[in-house]
Amino acid sequence: MPCAVFGASGYSGVELVWLLHNHPQFTLIHAFSSSAREEAEPIASLYPQLTGQLDVILQPWHSDLLSQLAQQVRVVFLALPHEASAQLAPQLIKAGLVVFDLSGAFRLNDNAVHEQAYGFKRAPDTPKHIPYGLAEWTQLQGSEQLIAVPGCYPTVAALALKPVMEFIQGTPIVNAVSGVSGAGRKAAAHTSFCEVSLAAYAVAQHRHQPEIAQSIGSDVLFVPHLGNFKRGILATIYAQLATDVTEQMVEQALRTAYAAHPLVRLRQQPPAINDVVGTAFCDIHAVVHGQQLILCAAIDNLLKGAAAQAVQLANNYFKLPATLGLTSRGGVV
Amino acid sequence: MPCAVFGASGYSGVELVWLLHNHPQFTLIHAFSSSAREEAEPIASLYPQLTGQLDVILQPWHSDLLSQLAQQVRVVFLALPHEASAQLAPQLIKAGLVVFDLSGAFRLNDNAVHEQAYGFKRAPDTPKHIPYGLAEWTQLQGSEQLIAVPGCYPTVAALALKPVMEFIQGTPIVNAVSGVSGAGRKAAAHTSFCEVSLAAYAVAQHRHQPEIAQSIGSDVLFVPHLGNFKRGILATIYAQLATDVTEQMVEQALRTAYAAHPLVRLRQQPPAINDVVGTAFCDIHAVVHGQQLILCAAIDNLLKGAAAQAVQLANNYFKLPATLGLTSRGGVV
Amino acid sequence: MPCAVFGASGYSGVELVWLLHNHPQFTLIHAFSSSAREEAEPIASLYPQLTGQLDVILQPWHSDLLSQLAQQVRVVFLALPHEASAQLAPQLIKAGLVVFDLSGAFRLNDNAVHEQAYGFKRAPDTPKHIPYGLAEWTQLQGSEQLIAVPGCYPTVAALALKPVMEFIQGTPIVNAVSGVSGAGRKAAAHTSFCEVSLAAYAVAQHRHQPEIAQSIGSDVLFVPHLGNFKRGILATIYAQLATDVTEQMVEQALRTAYAAHPLVRLRQQPPAINDVVGTAFCDIHAVVHGQQLILCAAIDNLLKGAAAQAVQLANNYFKLPATLGLTSRGGVV
Amino acid sequence: MPCAVFGASGYSGVELVWLLHNHPQFTLIHAFSSSAREEAEPIASLYPQLTGQLDVILQPWHSDLLSQLAQQVRVVFLALPHEASAQLAPQLIKAGLVVFDLSGAFRLNDNAVHEQAYGFKRAPDTPKHIPYGLAEWTQLQGSEQLIAVPGCYPTVAALALKPVMEFIQGTPIVNAVSGVSGAGRKAAAHTSFCEVSLAAYAVAQHRHQPEIAQSIGSDVLFVPHLGNFKRGILATIYAQLATDVTEQMVEQALRTAYAAHPLVRLRQQPPAINDVVGTAFCDIHAVVHGQQLILCAAIDNLLKGAAAQAVQLANNYFKLPATLGLTSRGGVV
Repeated sequence: MPCAVFGASGYSGVELVWLLHNHPQFTLIHAFSSSAREEAEPIASLYPQLTGQLDVILQPWHSDLLSQLAQQVRVVFLALPHEASAQLAPQLIKAGLVVFDLSGAFRLNDNAVHEQAYGFKRAPDTPKHIPYGLAEWTQLQGSEQLIAVPGCYPTVAALALKPVMEFIQGTPIVNAVSGVSGAGRKAAAHTSFCEVSLAAYAVAQHRHQPEIAQSIGSDVLFVPHLGNFKRGILATIYAQLATDVTEQMVEQALRTAYAAHPLVRLRQQPPAINDVVGTAFCDIHAVVHGQQLILCAAIDNLLKGAAAQAVQLANNYFKLPATLGLTSRGGVV
Repeated sequence: MPCAVFGASGYSGVELVWLLHNHPQFTLIHAFSSSAREEAEPIASLYPQLTGQLDVILQPWHSDLLSQLAQQVRVVFLALPHEASAQLAPQLIKAGLVVFDLSGAFRLNDNAVHEQAYGFKRAPDTPKHIPYGLAEWTQLQGSEQLIAVPGCYPTVAALALKPVMEFIQGTPIVNAVSGVSGAGRKAAAHTSFCEVSLAAYAVAQHRHQPEIAQSIGSDVLFVPHLGNFKRGILATIYAQLATDVTEQMVEQALRTAYAAHPLVRLRQQPPAINDVVGTAFCDIHAVVHGQQLILCAAIDNLLKGAAAQAVQLANNYFKLPATLGLTSRGGVV
Repeated sequence: MPCAVFGASGYSGVELVWLLHNHPQFTLIHAFSSSAREEAEPIASLYPQLTGQLDVILQPWHSDLLSQLAQQVRVVFLALPHEASAQLAPQLIKAGLVVFDLSGAFRLNDNAVHEQAYGFKRAPDTPKHIPYGLAEWTQLQGSEQLIAVPGCYPTVAALALKPVMEFIQGTPIVNAVSGVSGAGRKAAAHTSFCEVSLAAYAVAQHRHQPEIAQSIGSDVLFVPHLGNFKRGILATIYAQLATDVTEQMVEQALRTAYAAHPLVRLRQQPPAINDVVGTAFCDIHAVVHGQQLILCAAIDNLLKGAAAQAVQLANNYFKLPATLGLTSRGGVV
Repeated sequence: MPCAVFGASGYSGVELVWLLHNHPQFTLIHAFSSSAREEAEPIASLYPQLTGQLDVILQPWHSDLLSQLAQQVRVVFLALPHEASAQLAPQLIKAGLVVFDLSGAFRLNDNAVHEQAYGFKRAPDTPKHIPYGLAEWTQLQGSEQLIAVPGCYPTVAALALKPVMEFIQGTPIVNAVSGVSGAGRKAAAHTSFCEVSLAAYAVAQHRHQPEIAQSIGSDVLFVPHLGNFKRGILATIYAQLATDVTEQMVEQALRTAYAAHPLVRLRQQPPAINDVVGTAFCDIHAVVHGQQLILCAAIDNLLKGAAAQAVQLANNYFKLPATLGLTSRGGVV
């Protein structure tokens, strides 16, 4: 299955390139850089760790390449800034390509909510029904034109919460800590080595809040933190249980939800970030303490929270096993 | 004011030694190691960073030194294991010494709660009324024999919550992340360099839970985490506000509580761990989002959460300014 | 090719288990733990990150399992303490097994040098001629009984130096920094999280010094350092060039040496540790400054410096491509 | 002694501000930011960790403030970019101020060497004789107008080497690893959190090479590395000893050199970076192995390698004790 990656120079993009390069069923034909750079360059000049492993050329994208691209590939993955995705995706769809979009451009169903979160309107030619691809909770038909790949925080929060939403009353709280790669590759003061230190940010104001709410079908309080590690998200989730809900019921619900989903691991202990870094797993551990439910869940933000979930969805789209190409341990960044 | 430190070889102990060494009113006369080592040794042999700065000898403690000690010093600080403190403190009191105890031996008022949390009974000759010294909320008379210095997590949690308890309904949630020094100096598998990774532990089971509950006068849900940094605790605290409570009311309550307390800093942004590491400060930032209150608070676990708070209490005891000897930036470990 | 790993609970051992589990030609039949534990346990109970990925049981080893083992497997990898290897290997050889030994037990040809470095004598039934398997410089016949897998520091030092030894005069200097995993999995004070900090150790006294000297056929000054990272070794190597040696000659020698060896990458910039972590690569960059040669070289100590080199040697032994099973990015620890 | 700091918003600058704020003899009157920002702002808005500790306002500098400044202060410390220092210092001198310059503008005596290293010419009105203030090796008269404060790498290298230069033959090698703060506060790709990893850079090309050579009076091979820690430099230095030089002679030379200098600590073990971070110490440990000398030396790059050395020189200038205001443990960044 020939495919292309846009935004291949960014952290999620390069992980996508690596996963697709090693995938038994997908063949990476093109890797376009995030910005219209002047000249093509080998991916190893940005990521020297890939020297001798990946002879991919990062190309600048020009719209006049579209017709050629449409002949060469069937599937494209967009790891672009939100607004760039919003503009490009409709063109790609029109050219007959299947688009897996990793940005936030198409995740929020409600236009008003979207505009408030992202600050721009989606184009009129945006498809009407865009599946939100939380992989374990989505069954693609293979005929969709555009699939919105969930955000990193919403992935881990929703995978932990969805199986138990029926048992919860009130507003759950998602306390999450992300590694620095979640802020992307661009140099910035707050992600420079000497400045990073564990702290909350965007308290109850993060644009992933409405996405989590939409995904779980409930209001949610979301407080993200930046932590002093490269990769991974640890979410500690608090919810009030309805009366008479037992720990057994919670665990049974989790087991039932994920019995057929090998990329979610139900753990007997709280997962550590390092347990999932470099993997496509989401690890979940549940504790019931009286009426209070605590869910500890962890993912690699660049893999299960971005690139690996996109590939998992593409596997799903083409009726391939969920874990195909996703069983390694490690990443590029 | 001549004083001695027990448990001076541990992380909290060495911080105490350093603070007292630099304190304008206290004079460190003796530093006893945590265990009955065979021979005395310079503190710099355990902490080479103190070479040439601190010529303190770590001595083994023998009970036959007691009468001499009682003649030489007025105040002792115990940074010992809980049960060792429980046994030693009554002897020291009997000898006429004032004891600031940094262990958990004397923090919990209720004997049954104490025994469940710590697994041992306190001795019959334990004083009846032991002040729990959360420094900003305690006024010592200078006649107390034994003061229980609060634990690290309870310090940051209670400093953030106490001013606003009147506005809260239901059970607050304390989500906290501690640096590895909180586990002490002894080598252990879970604190070895290659194993440390952000994870929750002792979910709703930590022995600091009853201490927080006692300190704030309310039940509390407490979930601690171990983080991949040496020092500091970041607490993110969630509570339901009573109806009609506004952000202004919350902020006013915090300002009122700490107007006269320079070691609590009310911040306009969520504090980062690094803002407080090496200091005696507790930084607090409050966000009100609808009915939900989020408190972000940070301390250095070895200073405000242990050694510096003990010194602050000793300042308090002897009517010295709260910040005396506590305005530096940095620590030993 | 059925095989077994001894010492599978340690850091090098678990990497071996993972590599062999994923290798297209080797089949892991048994994984024995480092010590004679009382009960078998799943590898995921020690390495929870492997949950759901690797259903290997760590078994205690008893010598009465030997005859059964000899029937089930052809190849064994020993990731054991030096002396344990020295005792076990002759038994395994006698039983007809091919042994790849990752310890230092069989690396030093000279018995006196060995005894001084390791403090014990090798058994009389130790094979006389044991190939020292620096992979790019070794051609195995497939009939050897025991292969000594080089140490981590000696691997990176010798791979960088061997191609240019003819150009060097005097004693080269190897300045190297290793990640903490090099010290193994056992909890120890100097590798606990709060104690690790960049420092030299065993200055000119490390037991890898004679191994490097033997491998390059020259005296060497070796100064190892412990660094605050988990995995990887960075070596910065200094040597005096003979007169009339040019940069071109040095680069040509490196290119010639490794033209047919894809796991050595000649780099145009000094490699960073992260470029090789999780890989089987050795990255080398050479700078000639007047008469001075500076070689910057990096490996992952647990992979190219241990487990991956062992697998590479096994590939070599069985005439398989050097990189077979060694092209992933990532590891377990 | 009233003083001012230029470049107070940078890492070295803020350390200077903090040291001077706490110094018993100096009084900080003005702190000017590195660039001509539009508005004054509290230093705590850039360094929130200083909230409530340091009420200094960072002011933009305009040259029309010069005459006023000259009336208010006696001493200025410049922590500015090299070329900015080169331009400003002559003006300040002309106005009668004593200038301690932390940049590289005035360190190299030879104009041609300077221009090649820094890429600009010094102004004609630059003073002719500018003392190079390696603190332990400099005796200021109190009448100098301009003192060049040494660079971070040259400080640690020269402090280790100068006492033993008479014993050395050939070119010494300085292998050094610096924390990321050495690159300054400005966001840049190579110092962003996800990119930092131990690697050599500017191999034999760094502008501190001629400075070290000038300071020790000998050619030197210098290879700097960037390490994954915030603060500190560890130098491992290699030199050939002349025949008949013994370890005793080396140690005696070091003892003699630093007997009267409490900020250099001769250590019995190789120092770790953490031993000196937050201090004004330089730690040195010497090993003699045959004809080879290995010196392990460590400093805090922002303190002994910048701000603290500047204050130490100012103490020297005004006949104050060397350690005055320099005995704390800790820093701002």
